[in-house]
Amino acid sequence: MSTQVKATNVTWHEGSVSRAEREQLLGQKGVTVWMTGLSAAGKSTIACILEQMLLHRRKHAYRLDGDNIRMGLNKNLGFSAEDRAENIRRVGEVAKLFTDAGVIAITSFISPYRKDRDAVRANMQPGEFIEAYIKVSLDAAEKRDPKGLYKKARAGQIKGFTGIDDPYEAPEKPEIVIDTETMTAEAAARRILDYLDQHGYLEA
Amino acid sequence: MSTQVKATNVTWHEGSVSRAEREQLLGQKGVTVWMTGLSAAGKSTIACILEQMLLHRRKHAYRLDGDNIRMGLNKNLGFSAEDRAENIRRVGEVAKLFTDAGVIAITSFISPYRKDRDAVRANMQPGEFIEAYIKVSLDAAEKRDPKGLYKKARAGQIKGFTGIDDPYEAPEKPEIVIDTETMTAEAAARRILDYLDQHGYLEA
Repeated sequence: MSTQVKATNVTWHEGSVSRAEREQLLGQKGVTVWMTGLSAAGKSTIACILEQMLLHRRKHAYRLDGDNIRMGLNKNLGFSAEDRAENIRRVGEVAKLFTDAGVIAITSFISPYRKDRDAVRANMQPGEFIEAYIKVSLDAAEKRDPKGLYKKARAGQIKGFTGIDDPYEAPEKPEIVIDTETMTAEAAARRILDYLDQHGYLEA
Repeated sequence: MSTQVKATNVTWHEGSVSRAEREQLLGQKGVTVWMTGLSAAGKSTIACILEQMLLHRRKHAYRLDGDNIRMGLNKNLGFSAEDRAENIRRVGEVAKLFTDAGVIAITSFISPYRKDRDAVRANMQPGEFIEAYIKVSLDAAEKRDPKGLYKKARAGQIKGFTGIDDPYEAPEKPEIVIDTETMTAEAAARRILDYLDQHGYLEA
C-alpha cells in the first residue's frame, strides 16, 4: 500500500504540520467545550450525547472526564484545595493540546472554583474555550443523586463535597447556560451543537 | 446548516462513542510512536517529517514534544530524577489519551531511562506503543550539537546532561531502530511510516 505515496516529487518542508492543516484535514476547528456544574447536574450525560451528535456529523470529538483522567494522568492527586486546582490545571493543559490537535475536546468536571476555570480560559486563545454552565439547583441535584453521593456527604461520610460543605462558584459569563431542570439532556446537547455550528467550529 | 442533522429518526444511545467509532471516522488506528534517543539524534526532525507524510496520507497525527509539554502541562516539573520520571509518566498518559482518541501520537523526548519508558508501555495495550530508537553515537551527536548543549554540558554549565554526566539506557527490544548516522531523516520517517502501514495502523 505504501507505494502509492512514494511519489518522488513530494518534498517535505522544514518544521511541523500547522494547526490549520490539521483542521483542514478534519473539516473542523479545534475547541474546548468546558462543562461545569454540580454533581448530578447532567454533565456526563450531555457530553456523551454531544459526542454522538458530533460523530453523526463526522466531527472528531474526545471527552475528558473523571474516568480517563483521575485514574491516569491525575492519579497522583488527591482532593485538597491545592490538588483540586492542579487537577483542573492539568485537564486544561490536556484540553489545550487536543484543541491544538484540531479536536473538539469536551470536558465534564464539576470544576467548582471560578479562578481555576478562568485560569484555563486565560491559557487559551479567544474562542478556543467555551464554558457551558450546566445549571441545576442543589435541591434538584440532591433529589436525583444517582450515585448516592449527596446522601453520603449529608451523612458526613464524604468531606468537602461541592454544594454541601464546599462551595460551587457559578460562571459569571459562560458562553452557554443550560438549565437541566427545564431541558432534556438531548436538547442540551443539541443547543451546544448548534452553538458550535453557528460559530463556525464545524468547518475548517 | 444544523437543520441537515435535525432528523427526528436519530436516537442517541446510552454511553459514549466507542474508540472503534472514532477510528472508523478517521480511517486509522490510534497509536503512540515513542521516539527515544540522545539529544541531537534527530528525533524532532524525523517527527516533523513523519507528521507531514501522515498528513499527506490524510492521517491525523499530533506531536508531543518539549515545546508543547514542558511549557504547559509539565511546567511545574524540574530536572530531578523524580521530576524526570513524572515528566515521562505524564507524557505517557497524554499519549494514551490521544491514542484512545484514535490519533497517531508522536512523542519526541530523550526519555533516557528504560524503566520510565517501560512503564509507559505497560500502561498501554499491546500494539498501542511503538518504541522507535533513534540511534546515534555520542561522538556523532556531540559533533552535531546544533544547540551547543553538549558544549555547555562538557563545560559543566549544564548538569545531569544525558550522555555526558547522566546515562542513556538504550531500548532492549524497540519495534524500530533507526541509525541516523547512516540514514537521512526523510528515510527514517519513511521507515516509520512503512511500519505503521504494514502493521495496519493506517486503516480503521
